[in-house]
Amino acid sequence: MNTPVISSPYAPLQNDTFIRACLRQSTEHTPVWLMRQAGRYLPEYRATRAKAGSFMGLATNTDYATEVTLQPLERFPLDAAILFSDILTIPDAMGLGLSFALGEGPKFEHKVRDEAAVAKLAVPDMDKLRYVFDAVTSIRKALNGRVPLIGFSGSPWTLACYMVEGAGSDDYRAVKSMLYSRPDLMHKMLAINADAVALYLNTQIEAGAQAVMIFDSWGGVLADGAFQEFSLAYTARVLAQVKKEHNGVRIPSIVFTKGGGLWLEEMDTLNCDVLGLDWTVNLAKARALVGHHKALQGNIDPNVLFANPTQIEAEVIKVLNSFGTPHKGEGTGPTHIFNLGHGINQHTPPDNVAVLVKAVHEHSRKLRA
Amino acid sequence: MNTPVISSPYAPLQNDTFIRACLRQSTEHTPVWLMRQAGRYLPEYRATRAKAGSFMGLATNTDYATEVTLQPLERFPLDAAILFSDILTIPDAMGLGLSFALGEGPKFEHKVRDEAAVAKLAVPDMDKLRYVFDAVTSIRKALNGRVPLIGFSGSPWTLACYMVEGAGSDDYRAVKSMLYSRPDLMHKMLAINADAVALYLNTQIEAGAQAVMIFDSWGGVLADGAFQEFSLAYTARVLAQVKKEHNGVRIPSIVFTKGGGLWLEEMDTLNCDVLGLDWTVNLAKARALVGHHKALQGNIDPNVLFANPTQIEAEVIKVLNSFGTPHKGEGTGPTHIFNLGHGINQHTPPDNVAVLVKAVHEHSRKLRA
Repeated sequence: MNTPVISSPYAPLQNDTFIRACLRQSTEHTPVWLMRQAGRYLPEYRATRAKAGSFMGLATNTDYATEVTLQPLERFPLDAAILFSDILTIPDAMGLGLSFALGEGPKFEHKVRDEAAVAKLAVPDMDKLRYVFDAVTSIRKALNGRVPLIGFSGSPWTLACYMVEGAGSDDYRAVKSMLYSRPDLMHKMLAINADAVALYLNTQIEAGAQAVMIFDSWGGVLADGAFQEFSLAYTARVLAQVKKEHNGVRIPSIVFTKGGGLWLEEMDTLNCDVLGLDWTVNLAKARALVGHHKALQGNIDPNVLFANPTQIEAEVIKVLNSFGTPHKGEGTGPTHIFNLGHGINQHTPPDNVAVLVKAVHEHSRKLRA
Repeated sequence: MNTPVISSPYAPLQNDTFIRACLRQSTEHTPVWLMRQAGRYLPEYRATRAKAGSFMGLATNTDYATEVTLQPLERFPLDAAILFSDILTIPDAMGLGLSFALGEGPKFEHKVRDEAAVAKLAVPDMDKLRYVFDAVTSIRKALNGRVPLIGFSGSPWTLACYMVEGAGSDDYRAVKSMLYSRPDLMHKMLAINADAVALYLNTQIEAGAQAVMIFDSWGGVLADGAFQEFSLAYTARVLAQVKKEHNGVRIPSIVFTKGGGLWLEEMDTLNCDVLGLDWTVNLAKARALVGHHKALQGNIDPNVLFANPTQIEAEVIKVLNSFGTPHKGEGTGPTHIFNLGHGINQHTPPDNVAVLVKAVHEHSRKLRA
């Protein structure tokens, strides 16, 4: 069923299982890719990063970004590629000064903590993010139709967390203090972030991204009520502006809120194709709740990859069986895209990833038999 | 309605609203206490800790532990006291060597990472925890019936996390590696932990604790399926052994799984009186799901306490209204105990806590009018 669905200057897609599953169409196996599949657990990634000198040196160099995006595909028969970049490129382009110290998380030189700082924010000139779009086009060409390329961005709320905190946080005290004390400032920042994210994703689509994903990595730290007002509403604002097709081809969109399992029914109202799930979510329940509208992506615990091959296979089968038999035949119905429930751990043995991918493909074919 | 319900060598309870609400009985206001209410946000706590020299110096000294437990009650009209101690006293008594460096989390000298280390584990002699029970008795006497005293323990799974990791963790890689690779070892450790926790809580009850709480602080990091097998089952094993009454008086039990909102219906099967909820849970939905069996405790975001008084009041009212009017009159029905969704932040201005407690009492009386 791997019919090419793309007509464009690029090579036709040889493996469109990921795109079809996003659109709730049947596939012969459950497609699989892994969040952060191009990353530190691969020695070849660490070698390229060493050449690049820094994380941003890697992300801003088209050749390096292309090289590392394709590295996991050389090792494993993954069904999608994802742009190598960072969720924080937008605030960097806004002038906040992103940096990554080796072994540490991201850090901003300028924090957005008061009215004056918020007043200075604006949707950045996309020229400042040209390196991202150049990488998208370069990767798309290099993929040569093997699998589709996913573009992505952080969600407006997740960007705001980093912009206010200036770095990762244990308790989100600064950003939540602003949220509860100055909701007006928070809404202003989120509106700008949402419009920037939409423009950013659309420009990635124009550059060659065949699907887009919004990472709401910190949506799950919000209280019920605050999540709907400060995260979900702005993800919806992004989706209202993101292209649903490009050159006549459907561009699926994915929303992943880490820790968002309690809000699935509300996320079902989002104008996107796929909901990403972390490992706390029961796939059978999620399918019953939202599977009639949305494809589901996820959700094995990345720590399963530290077990032995037999146990990895058993856990993969548990996750596939939890979703159950996906839609078969014509038309649309519930579908599943296999993934981790969060980014792959940097200490993961690469051979275990091979075991996981093989198990997904093999068992998911049996499920359909 | 503040009828004394206790007959014992101690003074009768003057304020039994917390106990009554735990048992799903009506009260004139919604009782309120705060997780970690005796703690670093209070200057008087920091002064006592400075005298004690270290956290464990504080926790193991009966006079100091009594002093700090009562400190928040001197400032705020809270409806319950909670023993000042740590959730990790049991593994310390097992010989793992607990320490706290100033400004850092807990740390164990010996980690439990292999078969030999698990084989050495046993339910500790309660004499090693005598300092805890002495503190319970001393605090109960010092309270002189003002409000009830809550005893507590970490859950078997949460203790196991620290025992395997040796400290806090971002990714729980070590403990989850053991869980997925050697489930037999993990089950063995959890069974010992469960029996130790039950004995520990029962000894606290005999020493004077009027309610007990199990903190499953890390249950929410488990995958669906793993939570039920490795956390919930062992919390159930604890509850099967914990006294439901002492000297003819009912001892309510509370289970709090941080991040456990998705598993509420399964937690409803636990033989406890109250379920604690973090701020991601919608109280109205939780009441509809489990309010016919369990009292609910929670769940305001501790970061609300960084806003100004007007906003704190508004957020308190939101949480109270979300639960709705509690049971009134005779018999039992849905009840709510107000609390934070997690421990209070050490940077919280104490005056804001006064605002919160006052708002809970005032608005919850109006709700019943």
